[in-house]
Amino acid sequence: MEKNNLDMLEVLGKKAVTAKFKLQVLTEEEKNKALLCAAQGLLDDREEILEANARDMRAGRENGMQEGLLDRLKLDADRIGAMAEGLRQVADLPDPVGKELEAWERPNGLHLKKISVPLGVIGIIYESRPNVTADAFALCFKAGNAVILKGGSDAIHSNGAITASLRKSLKKTGVIEDAVQLIGATDREITTAFMKCKNYIDVLIPRGSAGLIRAAVENSTIPIIETGTGNCHIYIDESASVTDSVNIVINAKTQRIGVCNACESLVIHEKIAGVFLSTLAQKIKQVHEVEIRGDEKVCEMLSDAVPATEEDYGREYLDYILSAVTVKNIDEAIAHINRYSTHHSDAIITENRENARKFSKEIDSACVYVNASTRFTDGFEFGFGAEIGISTQKLHARGPMGLPELTTYKYVIEGDGQIR
Amino acid sequence: MEKNNLDMLEVLGKKAVTAKFKLQVLTEEEKNKALLCAAQGLLDDREEILEANARDMRAGRENGMQEGLLDRLKLDADRIGAMAEGLRQVADLPDPVGKELEAWERPNGLHLKKISVPLGVIGIIYESRPNVTADAFALCFKAGNAVILKGGSDAIHSNGAITASLRKSLKKTGVIEDAVQLIGATDREITTAFMKCKNYIDVLIPRGSAGLIRAAVENSTIPIIETGTGNCHIYIDESASVTDSVNIVINAKTQRIGVCNACESLVIHEKIAGVFLSTLAQKIKQVHEVEIRGDEKVCEMLSDAVPATEEDYGREYLDYILSAVTVKNIDEAIAHINRYSTHHSDAIITENRENARKFSKEIDSACVYVNASTRFTDGFEFGFGAEIGISTQKLHARGPMGLPELTTYKYVIEGDGQIR
Repeated sequence: MEKNNLDMLEVLGKKAVTAKFKLQVLTEEEKNKALLCAAQGLLDDREEILEANARDMRAGRENGMQEGLLDRLKLDADRIGAMAEGLRQVADLPDPVGKELEAWERPNGLHLKKISVPLGVIGIIYESRPNVTADAFALCFKAGNAVILKGGSDAIHSNGAITASLRKSLKKTGVIEDAVQLIGATDREITTAFMKCKNYIDVLIPRGSAGLIRAAVENSTIPIIETGTGNCHIYIDESASVTDSVNIVINAKTQRIGVCNACESLVIHEKIAGVFLSTLAQKIKQVHEVEIRGDEKVCEMLSDAVPATEEDYGREYLDYILSAVTVKNIDEAIAHINRYSTHHSDAIITENRENARKFSKEIDSACVYVNASTRFTDGFEFGFGAEIGISTQKLHARGPMGLPELTTYKYVIEGDGQIR
Repeated sequence: MEKNNLDMLEVLGKKAVTAKFKLQVLTEEEKNKALLCAAQGLLDDREEILEANARDMRAGRENGMQEGLLDRLKLDADRIGAMAEGLRQVADLPDPVGKELEAWERPNGLHLKKISVPLGVIGIIYESRPNVTADAFALCFKAGNAVILKGGSDAIHSNGAITASLRKSLKKTGVIEDAVQLIGATDREITTAFMKCKNYIDVLIPRGSAGLIRAAVENSTIPIIETGTGNCHIYIDESASVTDSVNIVINAKTQRIGVCNACESLVIHEKIAGVFLSTLAQKIKQVHEVEIRGDEKVCEMLSDAVPATEEDYGREYLDYILSAVTVKNIDEAIAHINRYSTHHSDAIITENRENARKFSKEIDSACVYVNASTRFTDGFEFGFGAEIGISTQKLHARGPMGLPELTTYKYVIEGDGQIR
């Protein structure tokens, strides 16, 4: 990689560290004022942002970008308005910093307090959608963190214009501009180098494709929070309500196919499989054609089903496809799910309390549902008011991450001369 | 590396995963029964353990191992008794698993519960001390986790005998033996391969030298918790009590020099430097000779002091050496500490409340002390009743880690057919 780029990362890193020490002492009022100013700023800078976005769109079309991706990339007055509204909503959320989480006294008279504090500098690597630039800044900033963003090369001009607008507003309200910085380079090597800036960055959050997450797992020396991959299961228990099961599966599969909390795989008790599958097959096609890849029994019961391979059970299709397997009992269901799940969200549909309890306890996933759609795994649906991503790892945060998950804690210990 | 070793890790990994699903459903009673049985087992197997330890000691002497390290390696009846007592103490601690951390209801009728659950499979890499084998097992087990241990090659026979004893006791109480497994190979390559067993291990905790931690940061694909390195500072504020300052510094520097919470660096307000340094110099030598490496002013005031280099300020000496720097005000002190600290434990000695508050807020370390020794950063001193290590990173856990830090959480969401 060019030495210039390495130097650039070094400079961004140092500026972010300077910024983090200033941000950690801001009051809630100061942060909210800056967020509201930034919201207005995005509206005021609409022309510049749309112009930059038009450049990205032109380049995208020239490079033969797919329609779906072009739509994700596109900004218009409404979408800029939504970004600004997002900043205002974050201003409305309670400040997660400076909370006394615990406090106690030791027999030797030491007073201990556990207090929530910002993580420090957060690195975020994300793909095309330019609105993430404003969202990620707002959440990191409200939690008192400096953020360094590395967006997709397709959106480089849009992200640049949004970041410039945010920085202008920060300056206007007397907040250090380097609270948000964007990596301007677009080559792939810089992403790998960014993942190794451990001296400056406290936490790295990769948001995007499975390939990006894997690259971060393999290359990052910074602690990361893995997000997103969801091979979500729904288990239809022997005692399930067929109506509920069918409704929930249709919702979880078809309401939005490209999201991580969509259902990808069915696990069906063999005693209910016949009636459930025939009802599902009939109803789901009224919404959308869905291919079912099943085991032998599923294929026997459903003439349209395609035989599943072993590989199917582990896949996140993000498409109108469902894998389906039958089981003899709940233990088999739990074993199958624990084996193939990405530990994001899995559901049981059952009228049997004991089975609901067992499933909730034994499924090793961030979110375990009883009689509800996996689509609810979402910061807003959980009532967090915001979401920076959905963690599929076990350290630090699991499931939807809101503002408190962008903080850590410190212990403050007060004494009057105690020694050991 | 030999294919045999890779296969072996694969086998251990799979067994641990099988074990974790069995351990997560154990009751507190079952776990405590197994821990008490394991404590008695260690006493019953004393002969075998001492014999194995004698082999390690012989090999150590033949390889010219230092006296200090030989002492760390050595087991005797008392030390085995202490290990057994350690297991009993963990049995006495409250079960951290299955706690309802939060619960709420959404307007759509979904009930959400956030519940503490085991991490799953924990990998621990540690160096010579064989008692860690029993301690680490006990803590991981009580928190419902399976553990795979990789001890130092110097202690391989001792660790093997202790693990065999623990597994025998588990079997006796009907608990899956693979709750604890020890990697038998001793080559270095296996440690690196172990750090990449992401398919089986949820969290890796390296405990030991700075070199080991660095290797884990660079090579591990498993999320790690960094532990241990402590370049701890004490800042002597203008208003500090000289008596308290001197007592605390002497305690923090000399009570035990080889530990991560020992003081390594002094930051001294220039107005108090003269009287503080002369008192310290006079008193500390009554305990032990300590070399002071200071800036220009310190060297002027203290004829014995040696000029410090830039590198000195970043060092964890683990020896009778202190670096010392003078500052004009508390802002300079905070900036110096935030720059050179390993973010473990840093202290201010002051009679000024405002400065105490400012220091507590602005120092970016896991533990920030006001008028007390940094030596209190310890799970037992904090009242946790146990400690698996001291985290110096910001994700998941910071500072001393007890049983709750060996758990994560899951969300259990109960509905009655809700869809989005």
